[in-house]
Amino acid sequence: MTELPSAPDHVEPPVIESEEDYGLSAELIHGVEDALEAGRDEAALALTAELHEADLADLLESLTHDERRQLIEVLGEAFYPEVLPYIDAAVREEVIDQLGPERLARLLSALDSDDAVEVFEDLDEEFQHRILTALPQAYRHILEESLSYPEDSAGRIMQREMVVIPSAWTLGETIDYMRAAEDLPDDFYDLYIVNPKHHPIGFIPLSRALRTRRPVRLTEIMETDMKVIPLTMDQEEVAYLFHQYGLVSAPVVDEAGRLVGVITVDDVVHVIHEEAEEDIMKLAGVQEPDLYSAFLATTRARFPWLVVNLMTAIVASIVIGLFEATIERIVALAVLMPIVASMGGNAGTQTLTVAVRALAMKDLTEANTRRFVGKELLIGAANGLLFAVLAGLVTWLWFSSPAIGLVIAAAMVVNMAVAGLAGTLIPIGLERMGVDPAIASSVFVTTVTDVVGFLAFLGLAATFLL
Amino acid sequence: MTELPSAPDHVEPPVIESEEDYGLSAELIHGVEDALEAGRDEAALALTAELHEADLADLLESLTHDERRQLIEVLGEAFYPEVLPYIDAAVREEVIDQLGPERLARLLSALDSDDAVEVFEDLDEEFQHRILTALPQAYRHILEESLSYPEDSAGRIMQREMVVIPSAWTLGETIDYMRAAEDLPDDFYDLYIVNPKHHPIGFIPLSRALRTRRPVRLTEIMETDMKVIPLTMDQEEVAYLFHQYGLVSAPVVDEAGRLVGVITVDDVVHVIHEEAEEDIMKLAGVQEPDLYSAFLATTRARFPWLVVNLMTAIVASIVIGLFEATIERIVALAVLMPIVASMGGNAGTQTLTVAVRALAMKDLTEANTRRFVGKELLIGAANGLLFAVLAGLVTWLWFSSPAIGLVIAAAMVVNMAVAGLAGTLIPIGLERMGVDPAIASSVFVTTVTDVVGFLAFLGLAATFLL
Repeated sequence: MTELPSAPDHVEPPVIESEEDYGLSAELIHGVEDALEAGRDEAALALTAELHEADLADLLESLTHDERRQLIEVLGEAFYPEVLPYIDAAVREEVIDQLGPERLARLLSALDSDDAVEVFEDLDEEFQHRILTALPQAYRHILEESLSYPEDSAGRIMQREMVVIPSAWTLGETIDYMRAAEDLPDDFYDLYIVNPKHHPIGFIPLSRALRTRRPVRLTEIMETDMKVIPLTMDQEEVAYLFHQYGLVSAPVVDEAGRLVGVITVDDVVHVIHEEAEEDIMKLAGVQEPDLYSAFLATTRARFPWLVVNLMTAIVASIVIGLFEATIERIVALAVLMPIVASMGGNAGTQTLTVAVRALAMKDLTEANTRRFVGKELLIGAANGLLFAVLAGLVTWLWFSSPAIGLVIAAAMVVNMAVAGLAGTLIPIGLERMGVDPAIASSVFVTTVTDVVGFLAFLGLAATFLL
Repeated sequence: MTELPSAPDHVEPPVIESEEDYGLSAELIHGVEDALEAGRDEAALALTAELHEADLADLLESLTHDERRQLIEVLGEAFYPEVLPYIDAAVREEVIDQLGPERLARLLSALDSDDAVEVFEDLDEEFQHRILTALPQAYRHILEESLSYPEDSAGRIMQREMVVIPSAWTLGETIDYMRAAEDLPDDFYDLYIVNPKHHPIGFIPLSRALRTRRPVRLTEIMETDMKVIPLTMDQEEVAYLFHQYGLVSAPVVDEAGRLVGVITVDDVVHVIHEEAEEDIMKLAGVQEPDLYSAFLATTRARFPWLVVNLMTAIVASIVIGLFEATIERIVALAVLMPIVASMGGNAGTQTLTVAVRALAMKDLTEANTRRFVGKELLIGAANGLLFAVLAGLVTWLWFSSPAIGLVIAAAMVVNMAVAGLAGTLIPIGLERMGVDPAIASSVFVTTVTDVVGFLAFLGLAATFLL
């Protein structure tokens, strides 16, 4: 390979794009907007002609409602089906309304089954029904069956198009079959070997197949250490398997163990993004589907979390109310009390975030839970001591009262140690009870740190300062 | 394919594992711990013999410091190099100390270059030096060159092992070369076609190569729409490209455009996990490397964020201090004031989380920023109105004072609208200034909502209630 033969004439020199060339540029968006506004349909078409489907989807998302409508009209038949799965759900709904069921049915039937299901599953039932009746019989069956599997399960994200080879074949027979077959998927990474019952018994990575000679039997070179995924496995579990074992594709089987589909890594990359996104949003109490949701939908989605927060804030206020008489005599307490609660809340949030992620990544196991809780309690107490000294000194200097300084210091140690405990025990407890710790931990932990913070500070003050 | 020939006798029936069989079971961990404690080395070896490298890494992470030491001794030569990149950084440091530089050098030289770099880059300089001198010359060069690229760049995560074919070849020549070559990577997904200058001019997915006849020229079937990655591209950018365009592998080129390596999707899955993880942790002010960091390292890592929080809490307290006289006359204000601040803080956190993620996913572009800020301001104001009514009513009933109810209602609207503005403008502003919005937004936003919350509530009270 050191001496390369010269290249044929028709080979283009490579184009090295810079980092900024990837994705959708602001100029392109503005260019399309200007063209649409000026009614220069041809110009808008030309600008979008070369776009990858993911970028065209991003462009549609960036436009306003009216611009989007107009662009889809201008695109006409140039609006190709592969764009659909890339469009964000809230925007896709609008686009689909505009396309109408007949046109959508035509577009869907040109997609791989996993992509079609992704688009189809979000539609409302009446719309689904109208599309199904417009679809070819065979395709209709596939969609209906996919939808019978639980949401976010392996059955929903798998594709049915795959390369399945009987175990008696040689590599030569396999290659001849693949050259002749017309219904193979566009891209595949492994050949699946099945026995006569259609159970997968092994797989051959394409790189191995390419390096093997024709007479070799598949069973001689196949890999049998294979991760087989049941139809009903949750997609989060599927993503864990792909990540843990570095998989590129994996076979999906039905209850009888028959090979029914394949999940490829590009679907999983999507799932990993989605799940990480969900955890981030849940930790902040955000439930809305996405950035593109309408104003009212978003306001409504944020409301419940804020209601919960209002109730916990009222609980904290009730605790403060217990000490009205104390505050009346030492107003400095009112000035200082948010400090203790806020430090506890932050320390608790740090801890619970680590705990929630460790649970999600399966790093927090039965075997190391006790060690983890102990460590976080110690960390809370240690940082509590450090901040007790700091807050105590600040208070002493500010209010010239060593006594209030001592009280805030003692309250700080208590609250930050409690934060360490609550930040671990609450998410772990929720997980064991089958409640998603990402969504519920934060409100419980900050309620605990608020209540304990106010109670410790004001309680100690009432006891020792009056 | 409907009539399958019967399977040869030596084909095993498939083993369908249930969901619980994947990953590391608690029983296995306990089994190994018991075996180690009882000194039954053989039993420990037998239990770990069949483990995938990712699972063996998880097992090592689950054990205590002493158990881990003991297991590595027991494993001896059965501790195979592929485990190393899977072990969490903090635990890996311990393991490497135990192995020593000579043994580690031997293990590293058996790894693909990207995996070796991943292990190597975390070591301290003196240790790196001792390993380099123990490595074969050629391998040493590769490591040194990889380390010359910026941290978290494409050059660090790429592997040098790849299949590169001159553009004049036919598929037949390519297959013959691959069958004979010994230094090809274990797994690869695309063939890269280069011109005489070693610039990549196209690629062929293996699935296409397998279906093509031998006399066909590679340039006839190659894909030229190729995403070429510069050596210095940040890994976050690389992950974006793979996700956006559904890539399985991509070529990496140097400044002169020469093909120097390849990034495969398994590395990118890892990066996506890492980056999402980082964003979650940053939003909560957690900086520590991971769950397995020692107590002192973790305490120290959490300290700076808590210091920042203490200072912002003191700022809020100073604001309250301005109204000491007012609170002295109406103690109910002290009881109620955390409600306004807390609601603003929560609304602000919801908004900033959406903004930070939208920035990370490049969904928030120049084109739609103004629309997004406007929407969030409206949402804040709308929820502010709703909660103004709720909080106002609760206050009226609780303290039998419609006046205090009106004051808290007005403060609520102001603070939640400000939360919508601050929750968008602060992350967007930080991003434009080149500061990571994930790490700094939260503290700024909650400072704003605390200060505005206390100021609005106590200020309105001082003006209208005294």
